[in-house]
Amino acid sequence: MLIIREASDIPLYLQLYQQIRDEIAAGRFPSCSKLPSSRQLAKELNVSRNTVEFAYQQLYAEGYLKSKPRSGFYVERLEPDKATAAAPERIPPPDDRSEPEEEPCRYDFQYGKLDPDCFPFAVWHKLTSQCLRNEKEGIMSYGDRQGEWGLRCEIAKYILAFRGIHCSPDQIVIGAGTQYCLSLLCQLIGAQTGAVAIEEPGHDGSRAVFGNYGFSIVPIGLEEDGIHVAQLEQSPARAVYITPSHQFPTGIIMPISKRLRLLEWAAKKNGIIIEDDYASHLRYNIKPIPSLRGIRNSENVVHVGSFSKSLSPALRLSYMVLPPALLDGYRRMFKDYVSTVPFLQQKTLELFMKEGHWERHLRRSTQLYKKKHELLLQSLQKYLGDRVAVYGKHAGVHLMLGVKAGLTEAQLIEKAAAEGVRVYPVSRHWFQPENYGDNMVLLGFSGIRDRDIDPGVRLLRKAWFGGRGDA
Amino acid sequence: MLIIREASDIPLYLQLYQQIRDEIAAGRFPSCSKLPSSRQLAKELNVSRNTVEFAYQQLYAEGYLKSKPRSGFYVERLEPDKATAAAPERIPPPDDRSEPEEEPCRYDFQYGKLDPDCFPFAVWHKLTSQCLRNEKEGIMSYGDRQGEWGLRCEIAKYILAFRGIHCSPDQIVIGAGTQYCLSLLCQLIGAQTGAVAIEEPGHDGSRAVFGNYGFSIVPIGLEEDGIHVAQLEQSPARAVYITPSHQFPTGIIMPISKRLRLLEWAAKKNGIIIEDDYASHLRYNIKPIPSLRGIRNSENVVHVGSFSKSLSPALRLSYMVLPPALLDGYRRMFKDYVSTVPFLQQKTLELFMKEGHWERHLRRSTQLYKKKHELLLQSLQKYLGDRVAVYGKHAGVHLMLGVKAGLTEAQLIEKAAAEGVRVYPVSRHWFQPENYGDNMVLLGFSGIRDRDIDPGVRLLRKAWFGGRGDA
Repeated sequence: MLIIREASDIPLYLQLYQQIRDEIAAGRFPSCSKLPSSRQLAKELNVSRNTVEFAYQQLYAEGYLKSKPRSGFYVERLEPDKATAAAPERIPPPDDRSEPEEEPCRYDFQYGKLDPDCFPFAVWHKLTSQCLRNEKEGIMSYGDRQGEWGLRCEIAKYILAFRGIHCSPDQIVIGAGTQYCLSLLCQLIGAQTGAVAIEEPGHDGSRAVFGNYGFSIVPIGLEEDGIHVAQLEQSPARAVYITPSHQFPTGIIMPISKRLRLLEWAAKKNGIIIEDDYASHLRYNIKPIPSLRGIRNSENVVHVGSFSKSLSPALRLSYMVLPPALLDGYRRMFKDYVSTVPFLQQKTLELFMKEGHWERHLRRSTQLYKKKHELLLQSLQKYLGDRVAVYGKHAGVHLMLGVKAGLTEAQLIEKAAAEGVRVYPVSRHWFQPENYGDNMVLLGFSGIRDRDIDPGVRLLRKAWFGGRGDA
Repeated sequence: MLIIREASDIPLYLQLYQQIRDEIAAGRFPSCSKLPSSRQLAKELNVSRNTVEFAYQQLYAEGYLKSKPRSGFYVERLEPDKATAAAPERIPPPDDRSEPEEEPCRYDFQYGKLDPDCFPFAVWHKLTSQCLRNEKEGIMSYGDRQGEWGLRCEIAKYILAFRGIHCSPDQIVIGAGTQYCLSLLCQLIGAQTGAVAIEEPGHDGSRAVFGNYGFSIVPIGLEEDGIHVAQLEQSPARAVYITPSHQFPTGIIMPISKRLRLLEWAAKKNGIIIEDDYASHLRYNIKPIPSLRGIRNSENVVHVGSFSKSLSPALRLSYMVLPPALLDGYRRMFKDYVSTVPFLQQKTLELFMKEGHWERHLRRSTQLYKKKHELLLQSLQKYLGDRVAVYGKHAGVHLMLGVKAGLTEAQLIEKAAAEGVRVYPVSRHWFQPENYGDNMVLLGFSGIRDRDIDPGVRLLRKAWFGGRGDA
């Protein structure tokens, strides 16, 4: 029985449509049966004929009805048990669930988070507003697959000045994060290369990408000055993924001599070096070392950079510089792709760089992180001294600690948490866990407030070595 | 010879560093030779001793020098020909090149572009400002890999109300565009599935993703009501990618009976239906048809949606609803991945939806595109009448025209361009070009101004059928 409620918020035709649909779905209007004429039903329900026509037309468009000229509408042949609407809900509706939250922690040495005081909110807001006003066409279009031309020009200028890289904006591909750039690379080089060499330990998030693309991972150990090139030479890998400017997670800065050996290896093997330059601008007391790509204009190097450590991790904006051979492949393989980075953000960043804010921001934020770096080193020296080995000083936004407390990584983390301090595992960065001594943790210092560093480290001493946690 | 210029903008230590580095690289400082003491060189160059120390420290950090305790700095062993700086530039510096621009066109029926009048700039600006003020922590963090929880809740509510889909925000994955979502899916289902069925013609950008992931493409022809299910049943494919709500590019709306047959196929074959619901909200005179995922809560359907056609293509924001089995796989495979969509934009969209702007915007923009759709149909009828066949009416943001002028697609496009009208190829959407009659073009109507539609179509008549182009 069809019931129309005039008082309802739902339009009349829609009420009618839904009820007839449900009747058909439930099999109560047998297939091939004829529906009453719109005139007849309208009269019956005391609604306008248009209302019925609309409902019928909709049911017809959706395939519930068929139309016979000069006869009317008939129910389509649907197997009734199939036509029922959504199965009974097994999943609670959205509002019943709240986000699973992590327990708050007093002192959090989270890696990757940056200090909000380091972000130029006022300028960013001004430039965003400007783009929303002036770039309306761009905001309503798909934009350039490789990234906006203007932003690519700014990036080209930046990496020329700061990383010694000569390239045309043509060679730059902007993507939604380093993992996205790596995923394009995996597809590009996948066909020719079966194995990829990765530093051991190395960045888990990058390794995961290669693994998911079916590359076999060849872990290459580290020497004091970075990746063990002799091991690499003996491996079957023709591609290597490295973090030469600040090895992740150990923080080793690869010296020039080793960089040259790597380039040599690539030239000989016709190999590919994927250089992840993720935090190269953050040097404390030392100047950045030229990028691998910058030392020589090598055809074998893909340079990958990111704004995650320099501006904001939430921007999700990375770029890569492709050598001409790979660029040709990129253009063939991805010609039907669209960009993964919002236009508004690209344009805002372009203005930010063009108007000189970027260089000022780099200088300012390097000073801020340098201070945090010094505070952390001082606190570590003050409270933990020789009981920890500190890796990765003078650069980046994290340190790795080897803790001589006879505790495993899990215990170190747990005991710290019990004192309200969050430190992070490094084990995940080993491909072969047996290579790991299980006595280290990672401390990011870019997200913690200056004043929290000293008390945080003091509590680490208490957590790991007992005592009251006083100075 | 080292020359220090006091008047230069470059800091003294940096000048010194660069010159010594270049000398070493050129082999003019032989390896193992001792450098002058900092005191001595400072005196010689009339600079402070600190300046020299800084330069030496930098060269040491970069591996150009080695240090011998109580003796001083020595040049590292570098093979001179390898140490030379960047090769001579073959690429012009960034500023010498300007963006390759397309020729401007008076009347552009571009597909995918939206009318700036349809974007809620003022509200978007207000909400963006609000997020920049209130969400500083989020802007400095990596955020949730799957997308921000709050936005996933809003999307869950939206697709429940508008697409009949019951799901938990847990099942929603937000990504940088539909191609990105598809690329995750390809990796997820890749192992078990070798072939993917795709509508012929079908969306080239989506097909390209599957192709790049090594799937073999099985083109399935279209019947009047959409994909040829009998062909699909006979094919080896266990996965099918379809656009049931507005088939791309033909615009066919798949009726309920066929949708049920598809679900039946998937259930029998334990297959996967990837439902790209890209423009489902844009219906003119007819109500949206429930999504495949919404008809029954089928475990076999992955529902993919996008904000590109409804809000802005430049947002680069899509989402997919994963059935529980694939969700488990997603969590295993991508546990070390980070989100590809900027936090600021996710948060702005979340507020936009939460505060009711989204529903208002959908209503308003549907009215605006409905008007353009009507204007285009009227103009086509007025100027071209029976000389064109129009496909894909009553939905979406494009039409496909079969033109009975004895011209090929290329000729149609070229002749239109000669009159200042840009229309677009459809050939690229055929996997097997021999299936295509080569007499069609695609007209997007969402980006063109209302007042340009009539004169644009009038000129198409002139271009294709001669005459003066008058009414």
